[in-house]
Amino acid sequence: MLRHSRIRRAAPILTATVLIGSAPTQSSDDTLLGFTAEGSRAQRDLERRFDERLDAGNLRERLRYLTRHPNHIGSPGGKENAEWIAAQFRAWGFDTRIEEYRVLFPTPRERVVEVVSPSRVRLKLEEPTVSEDATSGVKRDRLPSYNAYSADGDVEGEVVYVNYGIPSDYDELARRGIDVRGKVVLARYGGSWRGIKPKAAAERGAIACLIYSDPRDDGYFQGDVYPEGAYRMEQGVQRGSVADMPQYPGDPLTPGVGATPEARRLDRDEAPTIMKIPVLPISYGDARPILEAMSGPVAPQAWRGALPLTYHLGPGPARVHVKLAFDWNLVPAYDVIASLEGSTYPDEWVVRGNHMDGWTFGAGDPLSGMVALMEEAKAIGELTATGWRPKRTIVFAGWDGEEPGLLGSTEWAEDHGPELRDKAVAYLNSDGNGRGFLSVEGSHQLERFVNQIGADVTDPETGVTALARVKALMAVRGAPAPTGDLTISPLGSGSDYTPFLQHLGIASLNIGYGGEGGGGSYHSIFDSFDHYTRFGDPTFEYGIMLAKTGGRATLRLAEADVLPYRFTSLSEAIDRYLGEVAELADRMRTDTERQHRLLDTRAYELAADPTETWVPPARKEPVPHLNFAPLENAADRLGDAAKAYDAELAERMEPNGVDPATARRLNELLQGMEQRLTREDGLPRRPWFRHQIYAPGFWTGYGVKTLPGVREAVEERDWGTFDLFVREIAAALDRLSDGLEEASRMLGG
Amino acid sequence: MLRHSRIRRAAPILTATVLIGSAPTQSSDDTLLGFTAEGSRAQRDLERRFDERLDAGNLRERLRYLTRHPNHIGSPGGKENAEWIAAQFRAWGFDTRIEEYRVLFPTPRERVVEVVSPSRVRLKLEEPTVSEDATSGVKRDRLPSYNAYSADGDVEGEVVYVNYGIPSDYDELARRGIDVRGKVVLARYGGSWRGIKPKAAAERGAIACLIYSDPRDDGYFQGDVYPEGAYRMEQGVQRGSVADMPQYPGDPLTPGVGATPEARRLDRDEAPTIMKIPVLPISYGDARPILEAMSGPVAPQAWRGALPLTYHLGPGPARVHVKLAFDWNLVPAYDVIASLEGSTYPDEWVVRGNHMDGWTFGAGDPLSGMVALMEEAKAIGELTATGWRPKRTIVFAGWDGEEPGLLGSTEWAEDHGPELRDKAVAYLNSDGNGRGFLSVEGSHQLERFVNQIGADVTDPETGVTALARVKALMAVRGAPAPTGDLTISPLGSGSDYTPFLQHLGIASLNIGYGGEGGGGSYHSIFDSFDHYTRFGDPTFEYGIMLAKTGGRATLRLAEADVLPYRFTSLSEAIDRYLGEVAELADRMRTDTERQHRLLDTRAYELAADPTETWVPPARKEPVPHLNFAPLENAADRLGDAAKAYDAELAERMEPNGVDPATARRLNELLQGMEQRLTREDGLPRRPWFRHQIYAPGFWTGYGVKTLPGVREAVEERDWGTFDLFVREIAAALDRLSDGLEEASRMLGG
Repeated sequence: MLRHSRIRRAAPILTATVLIGSAPTQSSDDTLLGFTAEGSRAQRDLERRFDERLDAGNLRERLRYLTRHPNHIGSPGGKENAEWIAAQFRAWGFDTRIEEYRVLFPTPRERVVEVVSPSRVRLKLEEPTVSEDATSGVKRDRLPSYNAYSADGDVEGEVVYVNYGIPSDYDELARRGIDVRGKVVLARYGGSWRGIKPKAAAERGAIACLIYSDPRDDGYFQGDVYPEGAYRMEQGVQRGSVADMPQYPGDPLTPGVGATPEARRLDRDEAPTIMKIPVLPISYGDARPILEAMSGPVAPQAWRGALPLTYHLGPGPARVHVKLAFDWNLVPAYDVIASLEGSTYPDEWVVRGNHMDGWTFGAGDPLSGMVALMEEAKAIGELTATGWRPKRTIVFAGWDGEEPGLLGSTEWAEDHGPELRDKAVAYLNSDGNGRGFLSVEGSHQLERFVNQIGADVTDPETGVTALARVKALMAVRGAPAPTGDLTISPLGSGSDYTPFLQHLGIASLNIGYGGEGGGGSYHSIFDSFDHYTRFGDPTFEYGIMLAKTGGRATLRLAEADVLPYRFTSLSEAIDRYLGEVAELADRMRTDTERQHRLLDTRAYELAADPTETWVPPARKEPVPHLNFAPLENAADRLGDAAKAYDAELAERMEPNGVDPATARRLNELLQGMEQRLTREDGLPRRPWFRHQIYAPGFWTGYGVKTLPGVREAVEERDWGTFDLFVREIAAALDRLSDGLEEASRMLGG
Repeated sequence: MLRHSRIRRAAPILTATVLIGSAPTQSSDDTLLGFTAEGSRAQRDLERRFDERLDAGNLRERLRYLTRHPNHIGSPGGKENAEWIAAQFRAWGFDTRIEEYRVLFPTPRERVVEVVSPSRVRLKLEEPTVSEDATSGVKRDRLPSYNAYSADGDVEGEVVYVNYGIPSDYDELARRGIDVRGKVVLARYGGSWRGIKPKAAAERGAIACLIYSDPRDDGYFQGDVYPEGAYRMEQGVQRGSVADMPQYPGDPLTPGVGATPEARRLDRDEAPTIMKIPVLPISYGDARPILEAMSGPVAPQAWRGALPLTYHLGPGPARVHVKLAFDWNLVPAYDVIASLEGSTYPDEWVVRGNHMDGWTFGAGDPLSGMVALMEEAKAIGELTATGWRPKRTIVFAGWDGEEPGLLGSTEWAEDHGPELRDKAVAYLNSDGNGRGFLSVEGSHQLERFVNQIGADVTDPETGVTALARVKALMAVRGAPAPTGDLTISPLGSGSDYTPFLQHLGIASLNIGYGGEGGGGSYHSIFDSFDHYTRFGDPTFEYGIMLAKTGGRATLRLAEADVLPYRFTSLSEAIDRYLGEVAELADRMRTDTERQHRLLDTRAYELAADPTETWVPPARKEPVPHLNFAPLENAADRLGDAAKAYDAELAERMEPNGVDPATARRLNELLQGMEQRLTREDGLPRRPWFRHQIYAPGFWTGYGVKTLPGVREAVEERDWGTFDLFVREIAAALDRLSDGLEEASRMLGG
């Protein structure tokens, strides 16, 4: 996955949140959404037969095989893996092909970082071979540690420590009279997606950006380091992309279109997502001599990490020389696409994907998820050998080049855009997987659907359902007892669902298990079979859990009489987000008034230590009262339309279901329902992102911003954009209400 | 001071808190509480003449002189200092004597701590000499690092890391299946007063306790270490007492009576405040090899410090041998008592004290405060040379032996108990002082009084009043804008006010400046003139601020026509505390119900990682609904009585004041008013502590517990004690209401 799960052992991967008073389940859990009672029994019988065909030993052997060599995009190992995976799908009866794109993928030619004063230290920039890790000595074809889509550069300057390097960190620096113009910024990983750090630094005039893994966030502070324990060692480095993906993911040279050989390409100089300054990730072992050589104000308490030193902000006196040069090659991306045609609705597609490329050996990320997906495909393939066929078409996908920027999935989604918008009923994503708790994020029209799945799979460690275990965890953490479905979290970005959900408007889910075991192998050479089988999921039981969960999602979507969407969950989510944005505006207004009062009374000066530099914060623009009414009215209408449709469907499914002709027309209508929430011209500043409810944040990287058109307008005090997007989002909600009202009418309401 | 101010640079010393809606000032700030308008002008004129006599140079020279040698109780330097200070007071015209007590004061004969396995490491237990610190090489008469009133002992055992070692930390350990029976506990400083750590450990069967200064709380994480910066270095150690002072402070052998030569003494074996197990403070340099040798579960995130290692809980495999032996001598405590008899009310005493003993050189703690107090005395002495005499008697006191357990002040207060209860109108304490913000804690009947003082002294760094600067700081930190007086914080313990306030019931204030500069010299050999003049208060301008503040408090109390108490502030504080206790009971009830629900649904097991040991928490006793009514009724009556008296006084002071005869009778009545809040039999488990509103917490050490009889009963689920103390506190409030109603009648209401 592109994004490092920030939720570690102490805070298991769990994105669902419970809300008080969320609506009780409409149908009993005995009857599956989209099925009749009888159909539900048949479906569960199918799933039992599916489960019988799953074998953890297969996952282990596949993982061992696929992780024996580096497998990043463009590598010989990656190509071998793609061909082998394609061969497996074929053997299981899928109509399989490799689709190839040509994408820009820079790799390092030269990497030099040295402290040049007060004394000269050349950084190692190298992860060690350790005897406990069989592949750590495999150097052939292995990429060194680097950030993909860094600029080339050869610069020298004083260092400023910028904490996580997110915009608010620069406000803190400004309070201390520090700016980064002409400086090299040293940022620690965390607090945002990594690409935000050089982007924010470059906008403020920095000449280079070093990103290191502080042991506080990712090292000995968290637990024993590898190979003794799971966590990142002194010389461990987190690789990763820094392309400006909040603008658009995929090949930087072909925004919006598939990177076929004949595609029109931007010149590299004009590709807006390539970083403007040199950026390099380093280990905490390498960061230490820089931090030790720094002076200036002591960093704010929340900025201090776990190195045994006093964190200073600088600037300097440490000066650093950074020299980076890359080979800017076009390389092939190999996507494996394996289809099983539907018997009833061949033109309705359930797409189930996971990426295949790692940064080095890719054991946890992504192959732990991929080997489970393959087990799903194998079991489904075996079911077809018993004479069963899915009603809808199932498409399994193995994506290449996710790590540098969702390359394989984005190019495929762009290339097949019209077809997917016409046919895809859902995109089901997974990525790295591990021992622990079920995690689900996604489109809220699938919330009820995925709650039913979570209640149908049994956790191997506790014997209760995966859903019950998540609920127990949340209860222990202090959430109020849920009265209905667990709400799922909205999707930002960080894996291959983005082009499907946010560019094409296809209802999507991202599923996985994790939160136990922990680790610090992410994007290092230690993301290996040895590490994963000690600390990730030693028995592969949670790989099987993923297969059961992903398999059920695939099979239920493929088999449902009526597509298993429930829109009340979606309208409730939109109501919550709307409330949040209104509250945000109110809070900003109050905070701004308070700030003006403090400035007017000189409180900042009076509270400051005059022996230190303290600059009062810049006066913020007042927040006017905003007109949310168009959006509130549209949300109310959507609430009514959703409730009416959900109730109508529930009633019609009892006891005999919807007649086939109506069902066919209804499914056709439902297939495009999520797309009604997209806008052809996309979001402000980034037309590629079309979904009006979910987007990665422009300034958070992958952290989700719901209702992004209005939320980010409020955050950035852009009242014109706010007014425009209140109307645009309202129009999107109205389109969805239109569709739901039509659907209700079809059902005879 | 006994207690380390936990409020550092990042959080300046500031104990006042603002409340919304606190009552507006009753009298304008032009008219001083207890004075007529004309009297206020005369008083301010006196204070101007007082200020003119203050000289920062005197403070510097006194500090240099007093810190040239170790000055702990029983040391030759301490005796020399006491005699020199007494001579100064005499020279300034005070009737001065040294009062001597004989108190138990153990000093180390042998200190050995060694890691015996997995490999043998003998700890250094030694602070280094550094060239930048002139007295760091003075070893004659210097005490090594130790905890006073540790038990003798020679033990060996596995180590358990217990975080701060407070009771709730042991609940966390129990969740992980760890107990400390037969073990050596390693606790870090912080989170409570240090004496709680060995007390809690001993109660749970631990055989020894080591307390170290983690660099997270007190070392390089906070700032550059000495001598480069102000903070604690690798081998720096915090000395300090571990006598069980929440039972009673002072000489462990003479509870409740002055430790005169003829006093009846307990055998040492039966003295309940002497610790039951060996305890020793160590540096983080010495703690590191122990922590590095530990295994077992990783410590909870909040328990981890800033050493570059993974914090494990143990037990072991590290085993430690601890051997401690002490000389248990009776030593003389020399209290310097300097009086200036009042002209009008010679039997009404204003007592102003600061301690004189340090753990080593005592520059910041306590002599920075003592040299300011001396400047107050010098200026007052000089005023008498101009013919002025105070109306009331002023008693300046320099206390010996505060560090081991408030020895000098407690023995004096016990010895002179009846006289003090009869005569003292207030006790004004200070202790270590530094650059920064005014801090005030104390009796709420003095809240208005001290707000007026804070509004009459000008901060040298900003030119606004000390009060305005505190308000600015609080505003910047997010407190709502104050509409009236800043509320002062209640007093727990940690300096010499405790015997006066909590044993005798004398209205008390603790005043000081600080919060800028920061440092880590507390109770180490580096609490030196060199450290203080670099990082404490280099210009001594804040020593002068303390003298101006303490001097005003002394002079106004000495000169007021009517003692400057305002009882509405007190009744409002009691209402707040009562609300807090009721809320605490409600929260505990809800939490207990929630815990039972989680236990009943097996949520703790389901949320746990089964590969680790997780024990569900022990089922708590339910919290019944409690009868607060007697206390609420008494508080309501007190509110009425206080409002009536305050209003009556304000009215009578305009324009001509109270007639002398009435004033004399009223002052006699007011003098004992705070004592009405005491109970002869004291608090549950600790009869020495008689005040029913303020006490140090039985299980927090010095952190205050207001309404301790009911608050701690709720915390400990002791419903019988709750019911008893609801009535006892109500009775105390009624006694105060009786007094106020009588005072109102005197004023002709």
